[in-house]
Order: sequence, then C-alpha cells, then structure tokens
Amino acid sequence: MKTVGLLGGGVIGGGWAARFLLNGVDVRLYDPDPDAPRKVEAMLANARRAYGRLTLAPLPEEGSLSYVATPEEAAADADFVQESAPEQVELKRDLLAAASRVARPDTVFASSTSGLRPTLLQSAMDGPERLTVGHPFNPVYLLPLVELCPGESTARETLDRAAEVYRAVGMKPLRLEREVDGFIADRLLEALWREALWLVNDGVATVEEVDDAIRYGPGLRWSLMGTFLLYRIAGGEDGVRHFMAQFGPALQWPWTKLTDVPELTEELLATIERQSDEQAGGRTTGELERLRDDCLVSVLQALRVHDVGAGATLREYEQALLARAGGNHRRLGPLVLHETRVAPDWIDYNGHAHESSYLRVTGDATDALLRSIGVDAAYVEAGGSYYTVETHLRHVNEATAEERLYVTTQVLGADEKRLHIFHRVVRAGDDELLATVEQVLLHVDAVAGRAAPAPPEVLSRVRRLADAHAAIPAPDGAGRRVELKR
Amino acid sequence: MKTVGLLGGGVIGGGWAARFLLNGVDVRLYDPDPDAPRKVEAMLANARRAYGRLTLAPLPEEGSLSYVATPEEAAADADFVQESAPEQVELKRDLLAAASRVARPDTVFASSTSGLRPTLLQSAMDGPERLTVGHPFNPVYLLPLVELCPGESTARETLDRAAEVYRAVGMKPLRLEREVDGFIADRLLEALWREALWLVNDGVATVEEVDDAIRYGPGLRWSLMGTFLLYRIAGGEDGVRHFMAQFGPALQWPWTKLTDVPELTEELLATIERQSDEQAGGRTTGELERLRDDCLVSVLQALRVHDVGAGATLREYEQALLARAGGNHRRLGPLVLHETRVAPDWIDYNGHAHESSYLRVTGDATDALLRSIGVDAAYVEAGGSYYTVETHLRHVNEATAEERLYVTTQVLGADEKRLHIFHRVVRAGDDELLATVEQVLLHVDAVAGRAAPAPPEVLSRVRRLADAHAAIPAPDGAGRRVELKR
Repeated sequence: MKTVGLLGGGVIGGGWAARFLLNGVDVRLYDPDPDAPRKVEAMLANARRAYGRLTLAPLPEEGSLSYVATPEEAAADADFVQESAPEQVELKRDLLAAASRVARPDTVFASSTSGLRPTLLQSAMDGPERLTVGHPFNPVYLLPLVELCPGESTARETLDRAAEVYRAVGMKPLRLEREVDGFIADRLLEALWREALWLVNDGVATVEEVDDAIRYGPGLRWSLMGTFLLYRIAGGEDGVRHFMAQFGPALQWPWTKLTDVPELTEELLATIERQSDEQAGGRTTGELERLRDDCLVSVLQALRVHDVGAGATLREYEQALLARAGGNHRRLGPLVLHETRVAPDWIDYNGHAHESSYLRVTGDATDALLRSIGVDAAYVEAGGSYYTVETHLRHVNEATAEERLYVTTQVLGADEKRLHIFHRVVRAGDDELLATVEQVLLHVDAVAGRAAPAPPEVLSRVRRLADAHAAIPAPDGAGRRVELKR
Repeated sequence: MKTVGLLGGGVIGGGWAARFLLNGVDVRLYDPDPDAPRKVEAMLANARRAYGRLTLAPLPEEGSLSYVATPEEAAADADFVQESAPEQVELKRDLLAAASRVARPDTVFASSTSGLRPTLLQSAMDGPERLTVGHPFNPVYLLPLVELCPGESTARETLDRAAEVYRAVGMKPLRLEREVDGFIADRLLEALWREALWLVNDGVATVEEVDDAIRYGPGLRWSLMGTFLLYRIAGGEDGVRHFMAQFGPALQWPWTKLTDVPELTEELLATIERQSDEQAGGRTTGELERLRDDCLVSVLQALRVHDVGAGATLREYEQALLARAGGNHRRLGPLVLHETRVAPDWIDYNGHAHESSYLRVTGDATDALLRSIGVDAAYVEAGGSYYTVETHLRHVNEATAEERLYVTTQVLGADEKRLHIFHRVVRAGDDELLATVEQVLLHVDAVAGRAAPAPPEVLSRVRRLADAHAAIPAPDGAGRRVELKR
C-alpha cells in the first residue's frame, strides 16, 4: 500500500495520519478546518517521539503528507480511504459518497465511526460493498485495536483487505461478522462511562476518584487480559463456572443504575469540568498526551517481554519491519547503512546524547550490515546470529537532541566465525565525526549456545565485503586500546 | 503492625495473607476448608515469585503464618482483622461478631466484601465503630487499590487507621465518605461485565473477542489513566466540555442493554464455559496466574519509570522500604556503586539486552562514582564535568529481561585531567559476569569548551580512590584492543 486518503484530520484522523506516515505510507488529508494542519503536525510530532522509543526495528522512510481541498482529491488514486469525520450520519455518508465516485474500483473504504451503522454510511456510495467500519482507539498511532464491522452491502473481501492494511501498520483487527450498534468495545466503554457519570452526578466520587478506582486496580489488569480470562483465574482452581455461580447473583443487586441514563444537566457538566480541571492540575492537553504516550510505550514494551496481548502485536510488527527491510534497506552509499535522529530520551543531564546512544545507533548499522549478508530475521529465527563480543568506542564530538546522524561501516577483517568492523558516527549537517566504534562479532549457533562457523552462503558474502573493503585505508583510531598515555 | 487475623483464606484471603507476610507481618488465618492451607501456600509461592521481580528495595523478613481453628483465635491479640468470607451477609456478620468479642479494643476490622453494606456487617459486633470495608482487587498481593467505605456506626479514626495499615503494605486506599452499594470500582466493573455477558449471550462476540476488545485498546490506557482524564485528552485542545458535547448524546443511543440484566441460563453458562476453555487453550489456572503476575509486575515497573498511577505507588512503597531499612541496606562490597534491573525496553529482537544497555548501566555507575568524588549536579551546573572519551566494552554473557544486575567499579589510574576506570557488569542471582567496560574520562570546563585540570578538592578524592584501588589486582580483560587474534 502506497497512498491513503484521509477524510477528517481531528484527534482520530490526525492519529491515522501519524500511523500511516510513520509506516511509510503517503497521506492525502482532507479537512475543511483551516487549523487542521497545525493540529496534525502537533500530533505527528507526538507520534514520532513515541515511535522513537517504541522500537529498535527499522521503520521505513516516512511517507509524505499533503493537504487537499476536497474529499475527491483525497480519494483519487488512493489505495485505501479512512473516514474520520464528526459522528453525524449525513456528513459521513456524503463524504464517503463523494470520495467513492472518484476512487479506483479496488479502493477499500473504512469509517472510524464509534457506533454508527455502516449500512447507513455506505448507502450513497458508488460500490458500497467497498466500505467497512474500521474503528480505532485514541491514540491511534499507539493502540493496536481496530474493530471491523460490515454493513448489509459490505463484501467479505473488503473486510479481508482492510484487516491486511491494518496489520501492515502494526494493528490488531477485531472482526465482527454482522452489523451491531456500538460494535464490541464501545458497548463496554459506554456501560462503564454511564456508571462513571452516575457516580459523579450522585456525589459518590469525584472524577479523580473514579479514575483512581480504575487505574490502581482493574485497569492494571485490563492491559494484559480481559474480564473473562481474569474472572476465570479469579475462580481459582474451580474455574469459570464456580466464579459465575458465586458472582452471578450480584448482577441482580442494586449496585448499578440499571435502567437510567444520567441527564447531562448544566450542573453535572459544570461539576465534571471543575473536577477535571483540578485533576489536570494545570497540565496542558499536550503535556498529558505526552505523558500518556510515554506510559503507553513503556506498557507495550513491558507486555512484549511476556509476548502477551498488545505486546505480542508489537513483537510481530517488529518482525515484519525487519523482514521487510531485508537486504533492501535504504542505502546512502556503499558503506552508509544507517541514518537516524538523536531522540530526546537519549539526552543526559549534560544536554548531550548519552554515551550508550552511540552504540544504539551503530547497533542498528550492524543490523543493516548483517541483513545485507543474509543474516536477517528468518536467519535469526532459524537459530543463527552474530553476537558482539568486543567494542572500542571513542568519543570525538558531542551530539545534541534532534540532530540527524549517519553511520559509515567498514569491514576490517573476517574469518569463518568472526567479523571485525569499524563504524563512524557522523553528524549529517556538517559531516562532523562524533564517535568511532570498532567491534568484533562472533557467529553463533543460538540453539546449541556456542560459537559456530557461518554457513557458506553467508561466508561468501562476508568475504566479498571484506575483500572490497581491504582496498580502503585503515581508519584513524582503529586498533587502539584504552589507556592513559603520557 | 505486628499481627493480622484473617477470616477466610480463599482467593482474596490468601492474597491478603501473601501481602501481609511478604511485608513482615505475622498472619493468623482462620478458614474451615481443610484444603485452605494448600491453596494459601500455592498463592504465597506465586506472590514470592512476583515480589522477587517487583522491587530491588529491601523487603523485611517474611512474617510467620499460622492456621487457627476459630475466628476468635485469629482475632485475639491481632492489631488488624481482615474478613474475606464468601459474599453472604449472615456468614460475614457472624464471623465479625465472634472475632470482635475477643479482640483488643483498639483492633481495627475490615471486610473484603465486594458490595455488601458495612452497616449490615457491623450490626452484631462488639464495638461496631471499629469496622470498615477494605475492598481489594485480585491479585491482592500486586494490585494497590483498596476501597474503604464506612457503615453507619464506623468511626472516622477507623478509616484513618485502616488506610495507614494498607499504605504500609504498599497499597493505595481510596476512601468513600458515605455508605453506597457497590462502592466505586465494582459499580464500574459490574456495568462493563453485564454488557460483556450480553455480547456473548447475543452471539455478537466470543469471550475471547470481548477480552481482546479490552486489552488491545481501552484496557491499555486504563492501566495509566482513568476514563475522565483520557476523555479530557481526547477532547483535544478544547478539553472535557468539548468532549462531553460531542459524545454526550451517544449515551442515549441504543448501544447498550440499558434496562436489562441477562438471565444466566444454563445455555449461556455452557457457552461461556466452552468459550473460556478454548481461550485458556489448555493452560491451567496456575499457569495463567503466573502469566498474569509476570505481566502485572512488568506493567507496574513500566509505570514506575514515569511515576504514574500504580507506578508512583510502587515508587513510594520502595522509598518507604529503603527508609525503614536505613543504614542496614545490603552492601555487596566497597566498589559496588550501582545496581539495577534490565528494563523491558532494553531488550532487542533477539530477546537479549541491547549492547548499548551495558553502557547505560555503567554510565549510571560512573555517575555514582563521580558523585562520590564531589562531581555532582551542582558541580556540573557550575560548568565542570568529566566526559567519557574512550570505552572498551567486552561482552561475556547475555542478560535477559527483568534480570537484576550490579556493577563493580575499579579506578585503574588518574592524573590531573584524566580518570581510567574499569566496570564489571554482573548478574545478581548467580554473580555471573556479563560484560566489562574500560573507560578513560576527561575533566572538562564545559563553559570554555575544553579539557581542564580538576580542582584540588576533586583531585584529592580522585587520588585517594586511585591509591586505594592500586592495591587490587588489575582486572582480567583490562588493556585489550579490538582485533582478530589468530
């Protein structure tokens, strides 16, 4: 997929823009709000920051973003169109209809609606079978869930293709087989939200207390497992039926406001606003967004360790990124295998990039070098790899936040098991040398847990590379030891 | 607090036993089930495993656990009594009444009830003002939330003292000021659970799909922030009122089963049981419990990084543990300045700590070393610092996620401007050497932007340290260069 058209660039549409762009997809965005570009850029900056921390896997080059003046321009030539307009049936229906008339016949359409029936949304489209609901969750660039729901005219193939598009950008599609109001997640969210409003309305709890009741208890569990599996575990050895027998009757207890929806009186709204301001404690939405994203990134990484839920989705996404980068990773020159930007969290209290960040950068360059000799994700999966055994790092100059760096890599020597390489970390603007990293890598059989000669197909590429680089003069600083010279 | 009496040792009571024991409190547990000791021991084993990973702070020596034959024996001489019997008013009321007649007058009582009114539970007690609800969440030894709710007779002081007890064992008390059915969290949980049952009952989703709709999307967010703050952020720059105006009307949409409670027919129960078995995929409750706990520990640590929610509670708890341990904190030797744990985001796609993470760890050890010679934040602020100029890193063994590491640091040499040091990164469990890091640091005048001799007060400490370390044999691996030796 090369190009998506986005209809709407608010909190959800902007989040889609960020997710697609960071995954190398070009975006054409239609939003009549003149302020939309500024808001989208702010969200994109948040997303770049989050992705810089989220993964060490090689992201593709960022897609290009253009703002267009009509829904037709967004949809023309797009492989995929995602609509994220306000929740008004007519507005969404008209936007989708206009876009459908100019789009290619094979273009798939998805609506971000939180609960409107897709049958209503597709009714005026040319080729209504091309529309599915694709309902994401905020922040769209970090949360993997997207709910697919067909309308009466939706083709099965549309669901298949939309799921494929979402998976390719790191998401977890959840597919409903028939149309239903509110899909799945929003029915659950809505039930909880209604009860939360009652708690505030009746003065039982403040908005902060309601939030604390979630995030210090059940909310922690919900990041890893859903209600059913958690209750199965809570049933102890006797399992889910025991749990249902014990707690089922509580459903009939007068805990919840079963029959009523709280009226959103001016008084209730004012209470919520005042308490929410107190809770925010002067922090701006932008500050809260970054805090939320930083926490989400850390939680996703925590779950990745255990290969659970969204952590498993992240791991699969990284494997796909690695496989896709393969031997075709962007090359800037024969020795330049990697370029990057100094991420804000690499900066230490001196205002400089932490010394370890140079190894992070050259580690990515080493990965690119290894992929170019056939040591890719599949190779590692099969049990072979090169591990770094020794490194000499020399700091020549300091990098500061957001600077662009590139790495040159030279092979100094190789034998059946070992690879001797020399990286130079260079600032992109002025080609100033920042650091050199000299390393020996050892080929290992990870299954047997010991060093082993590389197989012939890898060795032949290693030797070709080493022979070519033998012609380049030995770099300044190679072969040094750490010592105090007088 | 020295001793607690526990009435009931099921999933909740056993969880309380584990939390109190691991925090150095003696436990007297009453449960008529002859199988209770086996179940409690199994839960205690899980809790020990989780706490071993949860914190590096010095936990007190484990309390002693005894099983007693009557509620009276559990309560006699207890400082605190926690009741966790099945959810039957008469049963709980009678247990609390019996225990109250033998307890000291200053003993505080708490009931783990999920929603029974404390006024009913305290009605037959001697000193009913001593009872509060103390409602925890499973697993009790890991989730910090505990809801306090007074009955009509409950004294304010009882709430104060119960909150203090819970805080001392690492929990987050949430206090209601008046009696209400279902407190806060259970009303929210119940609303979501009822809707989840409808989704399964109506064949819209399986139990696994309902769970996925939570844990891949909103559930991830709920581990860090509650619904109100998240919706405030989702309102974008326009804030919470904008969000309410946009999404308030959806409350009236026909998404949720507003008026009904699903009937737990044999058919529905059988469906849930079958789907839940499929979801568990043959994993036992014990296996699922450990997976849940491992993930929870990692999520708590992830949130601690950002000092948010339950992560902030964990950090405060650790600080209290450290303060309590005082000067008696375990010391591993004169050269050990830093210990840490392999953070989830240090792990690369091979499942090992990224090579740069060793420099991150030794960077912290270097900082600790520098602080010990007077190069602290104020010193850096004033323009002086030591910068790393050269590093030799040798990888000996691999670290994986969550492992505990410590760093030993030896000064190999020094002059007016330079410091030559050698770090060893060691795994805490088996004292296995993972990596060595040899470095030269240069004293700089950051304002002038060049190397400069360290001032006398720093130099004298550097020399004292270098002299002391000269007596230690030179470490294996020092003075190496990176090369392919034949």
